[in-house]
Formats: sequence, structure tokens, C-alpha cells
Amino acid sequence: MAEKNEFFKSKIVRDFTKDIEQYHLGPLWDAIPDLMHRQPTPQAEAYLWKWKTLYKKLMEATEIFTPERGGERRAIYFQNPGLTYRKPWGWASTTQTLYAAVQLILPGEVAPSHRHSQSALRFISQGKGAYTIVQGERIFMEEGDYLITPKGLWHGHGHPGDEPMIWMDCLDIPTIYSIGGTFFDPYPDGIEQPKVPDNYSSQRYEGGMVRPISDREPKIAPLGSYKWKQTEAAIQGLKRFDPDPYDGYAVEYINPSTGKQANPTISAWMQLLPKGFHSKAHRHTHSTIYHVYKGSGYSIINGVRFDWESGDFFVVPNWAWHEHVAEKDSYLFSANDLPIMERFDVEREEAYEENNGFQQVTDEFQPVFV
Amino acid sequence: MAEKNEFFKSKIVRDFTKDIEQYHLGPLWDAIPDLMHRQPTPQAEAYLWKWKTLYKKLMEATEIFTPERGGERRAIYFQNPGLTYRKPWGWASTTQTLYAAVQLILPGEVAPSHRHSQSALRFISQGKGAYTIVQGERIFMEEGDYLITPKGLWHGHGHPGDEPMIWMDCLDIPTIYSIGGTFFDPYPDGIEQPKVPDNYSSQRYEGGMVRPISDREPKIAPLGSYKWKQTEAAIQGLKRFDPDPYDGYAVEYINPSTGKQANPTISAWMQLLPKGFHSKAHRHTHSTIYHVYKGSGYSIINGVRFDWESGDFFVVPNWAWHEHVAEKDSYLFSANDLPIMERFDVEREEAYEENNGFQQVTDEFQPVFV
Amino acid sequence: MAEKNEFFKSKIVRDFTKDIEQYHLGPLWDAIPDLMHRQPTPQAEAYLWKWKTLYKKLMEATEIFTPERGGERRAIYFQNPGLTYRKPWGWASTTQTLYAAVQLILPGEVAPSHRHSQSALRFISQGKGAYTIVQGERIFMEEGDYLITPKGLWHGHGHPGDEPMIWMDCLDIPTIYSIGGTFFDPYPDGIEQPKVPDNYSSQRYEGGMVRPISDREPKIAPLGSYKWKQTEAAIQGLKRFDPDPYDGYAVEYINPSTGKQANPTISAWMQLLPKGFHSKAHRHTHSTIYHVYKGSGYSIINGVRFDWESGDFFVVPNWAWHEHVAEKDSYLFSANDLPIMERFDVEREEAYEENNGFQQVTDEFQPVFV
Amino acid sequence: MAEKNEFFKSKIVRDFTKDIEQYHLGPLWDAIPDLMHRQPTPQAEAYLWKWKTLYKKLMEATEIFTPERGGERRAIYFQNPGLTYRKPWGWASTTQTLYAAVQLILPGEVAPSHRHSQSALRFISQGKGAYTIVQGERIFMEEGDYLITPKGLWHGHGHPGDEPMIWMDCLDIPTIYSIGGTFFDPYPDGIEQPKVPDNYSSQRYEGGMVRPISDREPKIAPLGSYKWKQTEAAIQGLKRFDPDPYDGYAVEYINPSTGKQANPTISAWMQLLPKGFHSKAHRHTHSTIYHVYKGSGYSIINGVRFDWESGDFFVVPNWAWHEHVAEKDSYLFSANDLPIMERFDVEREEAYEENNGFQQVTDEFQPVFV
Repeated sequence: MAEKNEFFKSKIVRDFTKDIEQYHLGPLWDAIPDLMHRQPTPQAEAYLWKWKTLYKKLMEATEIFTPERGGERRAIYFQNPGLTYRKPWGWASTTQTLYAAVQLILPGEVAPSHRHSQSALRFISQGKGAYTIVQGERIFMEEGDYLITPKGLWHGHGHPGDEPMIWMDCLDIPTIYSIGGTFFDPYPDGIEQPKVPDNYSSQRYEGGMVRPISDREPKIAPLGSYKWKQTEAAIQGLKRFDPDPYDGYAVEYINPSTGKQANPTISAWMQLLPKGFHSKAHRHTHSTIYHVYKGSGYSIINGVRFDWESGDFFVVPNWAWHEHVAEKDSYLFSANDLPIMERFDVEREEAYEENNGFQQVTDEFQPVFV
Repeated sequence: MAEKNEFFKSKIVRDFTKDIEQYHLGPLWDAIPDLMHRQPTPQAEAYLWKWKTLYKKLMEATEIFTPERGGERRAIYFQNPGLTYRKPWGWASTTQTLYAAVQLILPGEVAPSHRHSQSALRFISQGKGAYTIVQGERIFMEEGDYLITPKGLWHGHGHPGDEPMIWMDCLDIPTIYSIGGTFFDPYPDGIEQPKVPDNYSSQRYEGGMVRPISDREPKIAPLGSYKWKQTEAAIQGLKRFDPDPYDGYAVEYINPSTGKQANPTISAWMQLLPKGFHSKAHRHTHSTIYHVYKGSGYSIINGVRFDWESGDFFVVPNWAWHEHVAEKDSYLFSANDLPIMERFDVEREEAYEENNGFQQVTDEFQPVFV
Repeated sequence: MAEKNEFFKSKIVRDFTKDIEQYHLGPLWDAIPDLMHRQPTPQAEAYLWKWKTLYKKLMEATEIFTPERGGERRAIYFQNPGLTYRKPWGWASTTQTLYAAVQLILPGEVAPSHRHSQSALRFISQGKGAYTIVQGERIFMEEGDYLITPKGLWHGHGHPGDEPMIWMDCLDIPTIYSIGGTFFDPYPDGIEQPKVPDNYSSQRYEGGMVRPISDREPKIAPLGSYKWKQTEAAIQGLKRFDPDPYDGYAVEYINPSTGKQANPTISAWMQLLPKGFHSKAHRHTHSTIYHVYKGSGYSIINGVRFDWESGDFFVVPNWAWHEHVAEKDSYLFSANDLPIMERFDVEREEAYEENNGFQQVTDEFQPVFV
Repeated sequence: MAEKNEFFKSKIVRDFTKDIEQYHLGPLWDAIPDLMHRQPTPQAEAYLWKWKTLYKKLMEATEIFTPERGGERRAIYFQNPGLTYRKPWGWASTTQTLYAAVQLILPGEVAPSHRHSQSALRFISQGKGAYTIVQGERIFMEEGDYLITPKGLWHGHGHPGDEPMIWMDCLDIPTIYSIGGTFFDPYPDGIEQPKVPDNYSSQRYEGGMVRPISDREPKIAPLGSYKWKQTEAAIQGLKRFDPDPYDGYAVEYINPSTGKQANPTISAWMQLLPKGFHSKAHRHTHSTIYHVYKGSGYSIINGVRFDWESGDFFVVPNWAWHEHVAEKDSYLFSANDLPIMERFDVEREEAYEENNGFQQVTDEFQPVFV
């Protein structure tokens, strides 16, 4: 069904199509081949962004954008080359469903609080001293921490420290936008003031699979910050056993009051690929945005080799064959849209069977260096 | 935040934007105003399609498209004028999330079976004698019937009768497409053959809120066809009491094994607006596609009057103020994306408070007649 | 493990048991054989109560118990002979988990409203003219109707008609009692007064698997009364196809806003066993209380034949082999505790494999006639 | 309604009751006062068992019960004095819904594997070196560890170490028994042999609210053992903030794949009451069995003071007013039936309002010392 036969390209058919277009009508047979393919054929493409470029451009941005001049959040986002057709929307997102960015905040700066119907996550790449304030809790951020701001929660940032901080942002903006569900409110009065002790929630979850009794009722964000120290300990625990053939030593951040992913619509992982690890290839409906927290190596995505090192970002689109190779011990943080696929019951997974599970490299990605 | 200030239009900013674009990077401050509006501002617009036009074009299509020439389904779909920017996808959908069409099948024709990760519904406008076959059950269709084909079920159509049949189709194609979750399979061998008695499921649900005991475990489609006779009886029962101020006498088709809407992602309603009924205005996150099954009247959508009569279709986009007025007893069938909004917890509703709940008519929609 | 060996009957062991008893301690080895059997061995037994006896005793009760003398509800309940050991509780229930009774109300009588943490159901055996009032809705009762009063809802009865009415009651009293969850409140002021039109809910559900749109949010009792006329139509619809091998033509009453059984903890069925039908035997964890609404026949329960006719009640305890034989077209109403078994994930079912699925009759139950 | 009036005690009524009893019928008016009280009035009573007694009797039991003589599990259970009426069942349980015991295993002993439809938990009081094997994983037990054996999982114990081990057991035996849902299977061949590395599950959860990706699908017991070291760290984290007014610093053990309590039907807590802490009094539907892991103090239950010290066990029955006072820093482990109350939606909580939230002590419990 994916191919239109000759008849459908004939003049009589093209004339009919043109005729009904004036009534804002379209022929199914014209749309079907593009819409109902056998398997996901996303517009989003595999791509990789270099940390050097990102860092340089963020630094340049500090010269141009200052709080006084507006620009609440100094964030540069990843435009998937395959999604530029969405430009009529005014922008191109990072995957079909997710938006990701790097954000830089300087000492002394403040990003006023707001809230929105999109859910957000943050992964801290570099620096320290800044905080985000969510639900009245100032959460001070350190490298390797994972933070969440699920839909509907007020959040702002401040930086009483003394060095620049850089983090990754990821939101489900494209999804909420495409269904028409966007709501946004600025906080009435700049940045929200603290209502509970600093780092309250992470200090209440300092050990074990136990939960303060007051968090028994499901909450949207009982724990706002997942500290690197604990995540690392978890991965070191896992490391005593065999790695997952596709993902090495990988954990998912969870909401302790539901057991689901910490953020309603986005799952986030930390995974360790030990030096020399070469995963098997597979593909799945959901797409993933990776951030190399530490290490170096490469991934093969639909036959193309993408070399990565610390700080880089790359995208594995829906249903793309992919495998990872670590040249050093490598920690990858990633955000994926599996929870969205599950909402529509379209998640599938397939192992790469040929060649003992390893793809042939047919091309190498050439990053654009600054 | 929705408005960019002067600084963001300055040359230095525009230059920076242009510079980073070469690295497939974009500035958040550029995207935000378009993406994070205070309330839903869908691209989809209110629109109305006249039955006369649809009928004429469907009839013309019978001259051109025949089963021998390909074209499995003779369907013409509704292109929302606001969504033509999506044309790079090859098509424009009916709302942000839904696709709707009218389909005509002639006696003797067969539409081969297939299945897909999108969910479909059908509402029978006109004619009789054709069947759809779903899960091995031939379901003969009559005017006013509502049928479902949830995701993953094989379905095909045949027409052993002797008059043309026309129905409305509605699918969640744009949603599944935008997240990258499309799977499609043609049936290996033309149209599936019957495995259970004809009209099996609807005959097992001929009365009351009772369920055959074998359907206790949740099923995706225990009941495939909702007969008009029963739906009408339900509405006549409701009619003894006060109408809903926004929707008159309205019922939702449900899956008897879950209590949720019959189709996983699309809710469908039948509603009676009695002659003279003038609803209050309100708006909600979800969008709706209406099909006038019987009657005539008009709806006011964001101040614009849309006159409708039997057979017409019209769209109320997300978050649009709307109210209905019936000039005759009118039955409206409708499909909406509330279940999608609920999956993302973005459904909100707001009553129109001014002017005692009634909008001022500021314009009248001029339909394009054939 | 179910049998204690000789050692455990020795003096040294018995002495130890006696010794620790003074400290309110018991030996596990003593309790285990009674508590951890291979399969359910309920104390509840199969039993049958004759309508003639019930009717006579209810009539006698009208002479003794009058509203003036107290006795809000003139109900006689079924004491399972196997559960009389529970008498220290002051009563014996009908099954391990359920209490059932027949209740008679005379014209002019009123049963004041109350509410409790137990859920109740009612099936109307005989008579007309009385109403129950639940959630402010007077529901007039007719033969064959099924009514629910889930936990926490105020309910009372009145009888403005002119003939005695008899119905079956069934509640989860033993279950709520055994866990210690009983709460009860008398209505502050006699019987609740109507707040909505009479028979409001059943008139809102007069056809099809459709639901008034206002009932989309799950409710504990959107529909309070399931009319016989509709239930009968459903069963006649089913009758066109093959019967269930164990249960003939059987339907379960459902809550239209959840798709679950109408009452939270008790499932209720109506089933038709056509004349001459002889079901296969099986057993399952849950227990069932049957009321013969119409017809006659017999059931074989663990090899014992129980003859029944219109009006009789009988019990199939947990895990008992049972099969039914209809001598006339027979409608059986029944209440079971499957929803309780499901809450603890202990439901299992087993087909009787020997003798082509039919038990040998080893005994016949001799009812105690009045 | 809780009190029967004079009429119901009259001869005519008593005669009627006696008359219908022969037909296994009972009068509702006789049962109601006992069954439908305003609030829970459990038969279970508050009670306390002294460690010294338990220890001495367990030691005596080692002289009598040896694996050769039978007696798979050397466990002595707590008989609630208020539940001895249940003796016809052959035993009295600890609360209405739960059974608890202390179990002792000597070096070299083995308890063969079995499985059952009841769920079990274990809390390690004393000793080390023994393991339990669940789902093929040998879990070595240390003081303060919490272990689970949810329904249906094979489990057995072995002791390759060199000192006696004592732990607390708790199961939902009374609940499963009372509904008639007991299934039990001995393992075909003694004790199950290891299939995964020792302590596999606890080593996979060594830090943070993160979960190995393979445990995303809900599992009944992804984590089998909750190590004391981590639980203690969690409580120390909590200790930086204000204590819960009723329960000090308290955490609940959770299943990381569902966010619910670790065991399906029983919730387990560890709580620290710092020296000098005096909680406010409250009551709730659910009942609790406490084990004093460390420390000393007393609890006031329905006005009666129960002094406790390390190793003791005590019961707070349903709906009993209770408050705790710590004389030393005290760690209390506890098991409660809140998940059962939630299944029936009967959980309620009430603060003690009089006397600023503190009960008057009206009596002191006198423990029976050995």
C-alpha cells in the first residue's frame, strides 16, 4: 500500500485531487502512502552535537543575552535536521516528541518562576552553586544530578554561586504542542520564595527503596532531585553482574510514589558502558536523546557511525537500529519518549538478527565543528 | 513571555540565531513565544463541509476510482484550512490530532483487510447492505450505527447489497504519526473470512448494562457495533429530564469491559438537540468533529456562525468557544480527542461567563458550494 | 504438611504447647495443618433453602415484627450450617464472605435510611409498589430488577403500594467484619427525602452501551437499578448463540462508568438455563449464592444433588465442584465474591475432567420443609 | 441501632428465633447489633509479648523440635487474647487480618521450600549466617534487614552459618483463610537450588530512587531484601527535619516497580522515635504489629500503658487510640494491614482532640513474664 500505482499518478486523478482541494478536501489514496507505512519512518534523523561547539556558543551567548535585556533562560536547543519542515511552527524539535537544549546560568542571574502543561527534566553537566526552586523547595544542583519539573509545577532558577553552570533541558513540548494542549503561566512575582528547607526532598530519600510515610499517596514529584552520588552507587552495584546486552549497566529514575518514571511523559536513564563494551544492535518504537556525561566511544545508528566524547549529545530516532561501543568507561545520560509510546500502546522492540547482532558500518557522521 | 521585546529583534540577536543555525541549533527565546502560549492556540480552525458537496464529489469519485484500478478505500478526507502547513507531511489533517473522511462503497465492491497502529471509528450516514469484518465478525451496517476498529485489529469491507453506502471515518492518524508510532500490515490474503456468526457482538449486547460473563476480562473491542435503535432509545430515556446546558441530551459510546470510551483514543458521542434548544457557550482543551446525522441549526464558534443541516460536517478546534442552536430536532454524531488530552492530563474546561453565557455573533461562515 | 506426624502428638510436644499458651503464644506446627491446606477447604457448606419455608416464616414474621415495635428491616438471613462455629460472633453467615437474606416489606411500612461500610445488593423476587431511596433517588422496584447500594450511600425503603414485596439482600458483612472495617451511621432524620426525579438513574440508561456524558468520571453507582425488561432482552440476544458450557446464557451487571461489576465487592449475574440444559462441572475459588428466579431443575455440588424450584436459594461454597441441570427454562440470579478473590489474586478455576465432565451423584440433599 | 430494645428480648421473639434456627435461618434484628456497629470494634485486643519470654521459649523449642523430628519451621506465633474465640479454626491470630511469629533457625538446619497464596514478610532480629531462597536467589540475612515473600513464590531457608538466627514472620493468613482462598504447595524436592547469584536483587538496588531497566514492567518482588544499612541511612536523612507528629521518622518499604508497599497485602515500616519523643494520639481503621528493634519506651493504647524494650512485640488493634513515647532512641519495625483496608476502601483516620492530643493513662499492662 505504500506505493501508489500508475493510475494514481494519471491526469484524471490529479485533476480530481486538484478539484476537491478547493473545498478543503483531500483524497485518501494520496495521503495513505505517506501516513500508513509498514513501520515507523520518522522525519527525525540521527544526529550528533559536539560539546565544544555548544560550549563556545553558550559562552558567546553570555555576551549577548543578559537578564536585563530579557531572555529568561539562556538556552540553545537542538534542531533535528529532519524536522526543519516543522519550521512553520517556528522551530524544529529534537525528536518527533521531545525538545532538548543546553542551558547556561551565570552567578547572580535569576530565571523567574513559571509553570506550564509541559513536563521538564534537567541533567547537570557542569558547574555548581545554582538552584532551581520547585514547589517552594530550593534544590541546589551538582554535576550528575537529575532533576524533574513535571507539568503544572512552578519553577524558577537562581545562582548565588560563583561559577557558570550548564545543564541539559528536555521537555515534551512537541507532543503537547501537536495535540493542542499548551497552557503557560508566569509566576505573579518574579521567582518563588522558599517554603520548605533547601534540598528537602532529596534529603528525605537518602537510602534504600523506602519512602517517607507521608508520600504514600501518589504524588507528581515527591522527589525532585536524584543525586549523582546515589545513582553512581546504584550502577556500581549493578556492575557486579552481567551487563544488559543492549544497554550495559542501566537504571531508570523513578517516582517513589508510583514506581513509574520520575517524569510523567519522559523516561530518563543513566547507564554505564564499561571500557570495551560493544552492545548488540536493536530498535524500538521510542526515540532517545543521549548526553555523554563521561567517557568516549561511538554508536552505530542505521549503519552510520557517530563518534562521541564527554559532553556531546546525540539522537537515536524512532525505530532506528542502534548499538553502542565504549572506548573508555562511559556514563550516558538519556531521555526517551517510551512513556508516550506506552500511552498509545505502540511500543515494539526488535533485535538485530543478522551478523551476530552487529551492524555493518556504512558511513561515518561528520560533525560540524565550530 | 508570549511577546518578544525589541532586543530580540535586534541585529546582534538575529546574527547569533543565524550563526548557530548552521550547527542545527536554535535559540530558545525565538521558539518560546510560539510554543508556550498562555492557552491552546491551535493551528486547526473552525470549518464546515457541506453534505451536498461531499455527496457530489463522492459520486464523481465512483466514476474514476474502481477497485480494479486500485484505491482500496474510496474516501475523501477533511483538510483543515489551518493545517495545510503540515503539507510537507503530504497532507493536512482535520484537527491537530484526528483525521476524518467520508467513504463510499458500491454494491459488489470489496476493501481488503488490513490492520494498523491507529484506531478507527465509523458512523453510518446513508445506505445499507455493506458489512465490515473485524476480528472475523461480519458486521452489517445500518444508518445511525457506530462501529469501532481499535488499533491492531484486522478489518476489511464488503458490499453484497444493492445501494451505495456512505459513512464517516475518523482515525487518530495525526497523533500516531507525530509521535512516530505507525505500523501497518496488509492482510495476507484479500479480505478476512468470517470466523463467528454475523453481527455476533452486537447481538450479545441487546439490552441493559449487563455483559456476557465471558467478557469480564478487559477486551479492546468486545462490542464492535452500536446499533442506532438502542442509541436512540437511550437518548429518548434521557429526554425525560433536563438537558445538559452545553450539549443537550448526549451519550458516549462505551467499551462494556472497561467503562471507557469504545475506542482507545477517540471518544464518540451521539446527542440530541431538541428543536429550539440553545446551549450555553463553553470551551475545553479537546477538539471535536461533528457530523449532522439529522436536523438543522447552527453553531457559534469563536463568534462565527456556522449553519448546518443534515449530512454536514464541522470542526470545533481546541479551546474554541462554542454553542449550538437547533432549528429542528437535531441528532449530532461527534468524535473528539478527549481521551488523548486525558492521557497527558491537559484537559480543562471553561464556561463562557459574559452575556449570560451566549456569544455575540461577529461573522458568518460562508460555505464553499460545489 | 497437612498431616501432623506422631511426634507432634507426643506428650512432650503437647506439654510445650500448653506451657506457651499461658503467654498467649502458639506453636506454628499446630496451626499449619489447619491453615495451609493444599486447596480451599471452606467451612461453608453447600446448602439449599426452600421458598415455601421462607415465605411462611416471613409471613409469620409480619405478625410479630412491626415498625412500631422496632425492627427496621424484616429480614431473615441464611445461616450456613458449616459456619455456626462463628456463633461467638453472634451469627453465622451464608458463605465465608457474604451474608444473604430475604426481606419482606408491607404496604405502608418505612425502613429509615442509614449507610455503612458494607456494600449491599437487592434482587426483587415478588411484588411491587415499594421503593428504595439511594442518593436521594426513589427507585421503585419490580420483579426481576437488580438494585445496588454500594458502601457509604444512604439508603432507606418505603412502600406506598398495596401488596407485600419480597426481595433478596446480599452484603459483604462477613468480609468487612473480619478485617475490622465496620462503620455505620443512621440517617439523622428517618428516611431521606427525594432530591432527584423518581427512577432517575434507570431512565438515563434505557438503551445500548452508551452513557450519559455526565457520568464519564467513574462513579460508585451511576446506575442504581437494572430493570428486568432489559436484562431479559440481553439474555434473549445471547440465546441465539451457543451457551456457555458451565453457565448457559449468563450476564453480569456492570457499573457503566468503570466496566467493573455494579457493586464494588460483589458480582451479580442473571443466567438462563434453557430446558434440558446440563452444564459441565467445574470449580473455582469464589463462592456463589443462587436464587431461582424462575424455573426448576437441580444442581450437583460435590456429588450431592440439590433439587430447586422457583424461589429457592442455594449456596455453592468455594472450590466446590458444581454443575446445573434445568428441567424447565430457568432463570437463576446469583451473587458471588469473585471481586474479593480478585483483590487478593487467589481466583483459580478448574474443569472437571473425569466422566466427560459430569459428576456422579452420590447423595441427595433433603431439604427441611416447614 | 446497636442496642436491641426490650421487645427483641421478649419470649415471642426468642421463640421465633429458635423456630427458624431449625431451618438454618436467622433473624437480622438479632445479628445487626453485633455486626453493624458505628465504628470498628475489633475482637483483637492490644497486647504485648516480652522478648525474654520469647527467647527462652524458642531456646526450649530447640531441644524439642529438630528437623529430624519434623517441624519444618521452628516458629512460635502470637495469639491475640481477643481472638481465642477463633479457636474452632484451630488457632488464634495476632490481629483480625494478620498472623505474626518469631522463628529460630540453628546452624545446619534447612527448611524445605514451599509456596502458598498467602504473602509473607520477615524482619531479622538477631544473628546472621542463614539465608532464605526466593525465586532461586539465596538471600543472606543480617540484623535489621526486611525481606519479602509475596504470594505464590517458592521459598525455603538454610543456615550454613554458626550462630542461631531469630526473625519475625508476618503473613496475611487470617485474611486469606477467612475468604477461602488458601492454596499451598510443597516444593517437589526439599529446598530449591540457587539459579541466580547470592543476594542478587539487593545488590541491584544499592542506591537512589533508580531501577534497573529490566525491572520496568511491574513485578511482584523485584527486590527481595531491604538492607538495614540503607534503611538506616534513609531515616538519618529524614531526621534533619521535623518528625511526623504521630510516627516520628518513619519510612515504608516499597516495591520499586509499582511504588506500592513491598508486599501486596501488608505494609511494613521502620521508624525512629528519638529519645524523649512523645507522639500525639490518633486512631485509624488499620491495625499494626510492632517489633521493637532497638530502644525502649512505652505506648498508650486506648488509655493503657504498654512498656516496651528491645525485642518486644505489641499489637495496636483497629481503631484504637495510640501514642508512643521513647525513653531511648528507638527503632520500631512494624507490619500493618493498611493495604487490605484500602482494597475495601474502609481506611479512616482520626486525631485525638482532647487534652491537647494526649491520652490519660488509665491502666498499665502487666506482661506475663516467664
